[in-house]
Amino acid sequence: MSLILGLLGGMGPAATLVFLEKLQAFTPAKAEQDHIRVIADINPGVPDLSAPGSGAGPVLAEMAGALRGAGADVLAIACNAAHAHADLIQRASGLPLIDMIETASDAACATGVRRVGVLGARGALRLYREYLAAQAMGMVSLPSDRQAVFMEALGRIKAGDLSSPVQAQMAELAADLAAEGAEAVIAGCTEIPLVLRPEEVRIEFIDPVEHLARRCVDVCLGMEAVPQLLGS
Amino acid sequence: MSLILGLLGGMGPAATLVFLEKLQAFTPAKAEQDHIRVIADINPGVPDLSAPGSGAGPVLAEMAGALRGAGADVLAIACNAAHAHADLIQRASGLPLIDMIETASDAACATGVRRVGVLGARGALRLYREYLAAQAMGMVSLPSDRQAVFMEALGRIKAGDLSSPVQAQMAELAADLAAEGAEAVIAGCTEIPLVLRPEEVRIEFIDPVEHLARRCVDVCLGMEAVPQLLGS
Repeated sequence: MSLILGLLGGMGPAATLVFLEKLQAFTPAKAEQDHIRVIADINPGVPDLSAPGSGAGPVLAEMAGALRGAGADVLAIACNAAHAHADLIQRASGLPLIDMIETASDAACATGVRRVGVLGARGALRLYREYLAAQAMGMVSLPSDRQAVFMEALGRIKAGDLSSPVQAQMAELAADLAAEGAEAVIAGCTEIPLVLRPEEVRIEFIDPVEHLARRCVDVCLGMEAVPQLLGS
Repeated sequence: MSLILGLLGGMGPAATLVFLEKLQAFTPAKAEQDHIRVIADINPGVPDLSAPGSGAGPVLAEMAGALRGAGADVLAIACNAAHAHADLIQRASGLPLIDMIETASDAACATGVRRVGVLGARGALRLYREYLAAQAMGMVSLPSDRQAVFMEALGRIKAGDLSSPVQAQMAELAADLAAEGAEAVIAGCTEIPLVLRPEEVRIEFIDPVEHLARRCVDVCLGMEAVPQLLGS
């Protein structure tokens, strides 16, 4: 019997479906019943994660508690920036979290590179800086004028614009990180892989959604230990 | 503030994601926040719906109750056959159901045809026969030897086989219904549209998942009344 995954999603809604597709694709299922049970709260109404004091934390904590009530055994969050509230989410729900920031940082470390570029909103960059530093890796981010371009492109993706100009813009931003010395790039926002394909990036491309999906399969099917519950 | 949709899914898991994609695609969203909040239980472990006495009803009822506990306002089921337990699901959860069988039958009626072919497992055929008869429409189903071919193809789709031989087989089965006098065909199993495209069917093709997604958008955004709760 596999563990039941509780998923905090909707930030944004399209990226959550990509996560769910990858989870199904990576599950070694011969029959329908071999798939992992997921209880997903796809909530596009979570307050703006990039605005301090927006109240996102308590909303996420309440969602996590309700997922536990519905039967979830272990949690995942299909959004990088929301991991800023990972502690609160775990404490409020009493459920362990399969952490996407940690998973992607581990994947970056496993590539053997020393300098990792991260594309993401400020909150996500802060989280990755901490995790990468803990593994003695340097982090490269965009200069502030290019970060502004990134945020504008992100806003367009979130509004449903997946057009080639946005794709080209995101590929250029990844190239900027490579020019600054990054040997790999982490797509530190779940919307990025909606427009940026690995083959468009000439350095190693790390998609946290993909790595999270693989790890959720391993944990839920018992091939990897359940992460330790915070404070236990 | 839109209503929160509680979704009973996982029967099968791939079809549930198709439903969620359509729901997002049909939502008139200018920004991420305009999307509908969905709490989905994607449970591939629901006992076999086609086996009488399998215990699927109580499992579905328990899932529905948990969705209400997690915050759902109204329910939908991303599986035709599971609607055999629609009464129990509504009574147990106290939530109204946006009924896929009713929605697809209404869509068939709206095309103006009088004889509707239905592809589906026996349980789903029974449900459609009842709803279509209530609208004075005749229903055409496959002869038993071809029904056996359908069930075998369905088993292959559920095991992940979406290959062209399976696609061709499903198109032939739809053609069989047309040859028997059907003027439209309902894909009475959520797996069918995974292999059968409307353009491959020379008569009107009704995809219940698509019609259900459109109706869920309308109900959750207040453009259509919430269905009456059973017994109220």
